[in-house]
Amino acid sequence: MFDYRLVPIEPNDRKIVLVILDGLGGLPLKDKTELETAWVPNLDQLAVKSALGKMVPIARGVTPGSGAAHLAIFGYDPVQYPVGRGVLEALGCGLNPGPGDLCARANFATVDENGVITDRRAKENGERMRDQECAELCELLEEKIPEIDGVKVTIVPGKGHRFVVMFSGPGLADGLSDSDPGKEGKTPLPVQALKPEAERSAQVANRFIELAAGALKGRKRANYVLLRGLALPPRLPNFQERYQLRAAAIAAYPMYRGLARLVGMRVLPCGETWESEIETLEKNYAHYDFFYIHFKEFDQAGEDGDFERKVELLEQFDERIVPRLVKLKPDVLCITGDHSTPAVLKGHSWHTVPLLIHSPWVRVHSFAEEFGERACIRGSLGLIFGIEIMPLLMANAQRFGKFGA
Amino acid sequence: MFDYRLVPIEPNDRKIVLVILDGLGGLPLKDKTELETAWVPNLDQLAVKSALGKMVPIARGVTPGSGAAHLAIFGYDPVQYPVGRGVLEALGCGLNPGPGDLCARANFATVDENGVITDRRAKENGERMRDQECAELCELLEEKIPEIDGVKVTIVPGKGHRFVVMFSGPGLADGLSDSDPGKEGKTPLPVQALKPEAERSAQVANRFIELAAGALKGRKRANYVLLRGLALPPRLPNFQERYQLRAAAIAAYPMYRGLARLVGMRVLPCGETWESEIETLEKNYAHYDFFYIHFKEFDQAGEDGDFERKVELLEQFDERIVPRLVKLKPDVLCITGDHSTPAVLKGHSWHTVPLLIHSPWVRVHSFAEEFGERACIRGSLGLIFGIEIMPLLMANAQRFGKFGA
Repeated sequence: MFDYRLVPIEPNDRKIVLVILDGLGGLPLKDKTELETAWVPNLDQLAVKSALGKMVPIARGVTPGSGAAHLAIFGYDPVQYPVGRGVLEALGCGLNPGPGDLCARANFATVDENGVITDRRAKENGERMRDQECAELCELLEEKIPEIDGVKVTIVPGKGHRFVVMFSGPGLADGLSDSDPGKEGKTPLPVQALKPEAERSAQVANRFIELAAGALKGRKRANYVLLRGLALPPRLPNFQERYQLRAAAIAAYPMYRGLARLVGMRVLPCGETWESEIETLEKNYAHYDFFYIHFKEFDQAGEDGDFERKVELLEQFDERIVPRLVKLKPDVLCITGDHSTPAVLKGHSWHTVPLLIHSPWVRVHSFAEEFGERACIRGSLGLIFGIEIMPLLMANAQRFGKFGA
Repeated sequence: MFDYRLVPIEPNDRKIVLVILDGLGGLPLKDKTELETAWVPNLDQLAVKSALGKMVPIARGVTPGSGAAHLAIFGYDPVQYPVGRGVLEALGCGLNPGPGDLCARANFATVDENGVITDRRAKENGERMRDQECAELCELLEEKIPEIDGVKVTIVPGKGHRFVVMFSGPGLADGLSDSDPGKEGKTPLPVQALKPEAERSAQVANRFIELAAGALKGRKRANYVLLRGLALPPRLPNFQERYQLRAAAIAAYPMYRGLARLVGMRVLPCGETWESEIETLEKNYAHYDFFYIHFKEFDQAGEDGDFERKVELLEQFDERIVPRLVKLKPDVLCITGDHSTPAVLKGHSWHTVPLLIHSPWVRVHSFAEEFGERACIRGSLGLIFGIEIMPLLMANAQRFGKFGA
């Protein structure tokens, strides 16, 4: 892998807009994918004037998680900089873990008088725990366990039985096992240090579990907590310094704001609608060189297996958002996804993702007159890895100098 | 290069069939390659419902040997795990070298009274040595040299002047020079240890040459032996454990059975005909998750420069074998070659190899209605390296989990 840090950066005033449609790539239900089925005249018109390609997020055959896929697109090797599950959940809850903050996915569970787990999700008469109850229990825990041995404890409720715990204090490390044994009928496991420097972190995590069980004592259900995916945020080189870009992120969903914040982008406040996102872009357009703007709902439709909904969302995006993106006339406009989420697979997949790059300097090809998987397969960019996106955008913005004499 | 061991394996009951047509790729004699010339309606029909691509066995411009090409397709970096020539010859002779067994290509040669090589191939009146004579001399050597200093000596005759020697015993290592100086008019070289731990192996090899010369003494010709390509088998991580697959190999030729055994596949007994190979697949289909099935003859026709023969073999394969492969309805069916052997080049080549992957989850493209080099160049898979084949097959069998959070 070429080390792109060897390329000199030549700052200028050209603007780059990177649009991520989460889970964009698809598979045919009959003979066409979601994007090929959708009536997207604005994207098609843009495609005719752009370079197309197919993007491999991480590696051939590899289905990426959202964190890994985004880091790759931002130019970070996701193997070198792994984002732990606990960190991703913390970001998704709107937490802002700093270096050294240990994050865990947590959930309420039910144990019997012998300490054996009878329900890993603390259901009530077979029903999922209510969000309200989870919020109340999290409040109780945060009140009873404000800190452990000098480590601040932050607790944020999630959906149903889920919540996030963040431990903030000196000397914390990752390399910790889960306390969740993964099935009912077993006793919870102690969190174990998988490397010596994580010893203190394991003690803190185990003490938290002990104190939480004490606080929940006497309850028939939801009387225990399980921790998984304990992790520190990766120490990432700063994106703005790396590319010498004033970089802003716009995302309605907290996890994506969090990922952008992790790499050091400025996260712009915005509402939850697409209109709010594009308005935020328009209002701040003069003040930054680079914008990452994220649209989530395609991925959800794919995960739900709702082909028609994904098609409809793409049509909506084409109608409501694309004309406003184009109207800004960014010097470089890139539209792609972080990964594929084909409705027929009901989940993330390993397939390539349609990629469109518009700039005055791309080789436009004449094979395709639409934006879709098939057109992108034949696109002039060919096969692009996620980690090659930023270099291509920098090059098209003429912000990359010459390599070598 | 991404480390695919980072991807979690999720075993299931989906079946993968990997079909290798040895030397499949070709070049046009006039305007079409061997595969494009062949009338292969079954392959063409399959191609319409499959993803096509072009496979680079090792790297751009690199013509691979059979061992290296196969290892790459099985998912092993052939640079990290070199298969020495001696090992490959031993496998081809049906030997089963274990870890620490030192293998050498050997041949009978003729030296004069001063020990100068007059003929590296021990020809008789300009004629190649007869196989029968080679077998007799090998028998003589094995009788006279059953072991050297606690090291068992196994000798297997090959074609003409060629044979294979395998040394089995403790403390053997590779890193040895050849005794063959490569031209007539020179004296044979001593086998030299190229690293300290190979010292004992060099002594054993040189002692073998000395004892062989003694046994052959008094003969006018074929009175000496030369050793080349001394090597131990690479220590390969087990394929079945690596991919959590019950993996079986079907190959009429010993070398390919040997390569499969080296990586830890179960080698199924089968006869020498294609029908015997496909019958072996059919009979064992229920008992394994993964099948590697190898068909050799295309490569031989290519090596012979026999374009028409290669075309005919492809047509035969299409008629006799493809319908039976398709009838098994494997969840993932991959048809490709280990490398190209264009008849016009009369040998292995560096060209990309046609690749077809059929599964419910491939992006079928509608550009091509045939299986051939040109169709594959435009295929939806684009350019695939040999080492990426297994990940793609695993992904299509949904046996690869998600990478990263």
